[in-house]
Amino acid sequence: MKIKVIVTLKNGVLDPQGKAIQQTLNGMGFSSVNEVRQGKFFEVDVNEKDEAKAKIKVEDMCKKLLANLVIENFEIL
Amino acid sequence: MKIKVIVTLKNGVLDPQGKAIQQTLNGMGFSSVNEVRQGKFFEVDVNEKDEAKAKIKVEDMCKKLLANLVIENFEIL
Repeated sequence: MKIKVIVTLKNGVLDPQGKAIQQTLNGMGFSSVNEVRQGKFFEVDVNEKDEAKAKIKVEDMCKKLLANLVIENFEIL
Repeated sequence: MKIKVIVTLKNGVLDPQGKAIQQTLNGMGFSSVNEVRQGKFFEVDVNEKDEAKAKIKVEDMCKKLLANLVIENFEIL
């Protein structure tokens, strides 16, 4: 089954990519945009029919590879 | 208010980054991983209190900048 994961920068970690997107949006006329933060999204197809077990595996993958826990949080959807 | 957006590659579009992650996970012992697809995540802070109006604005931003609709789909959470 497919498990979806979002990895985001922790609060306080600078996000120059998000800042560039925000400035571009402002320049395009979207003046109401205060801030943009960019993160990553993963869809992991695990050979496991039990959703709870699949999520435990994906959590382990996040801790070991997909997210850098020093500067990033992850959320399994 | 903050609106969350996920941008993913359309089915059929090659995802070498996702493939590399899948192979790395397999190599790390996660042999049950069949496929990984990577996408992008954005959190857009819009100066707009009405959620429906904020989402309409963010949808417009997705069409004009955040997603390449030729090869990507977007989903507003």
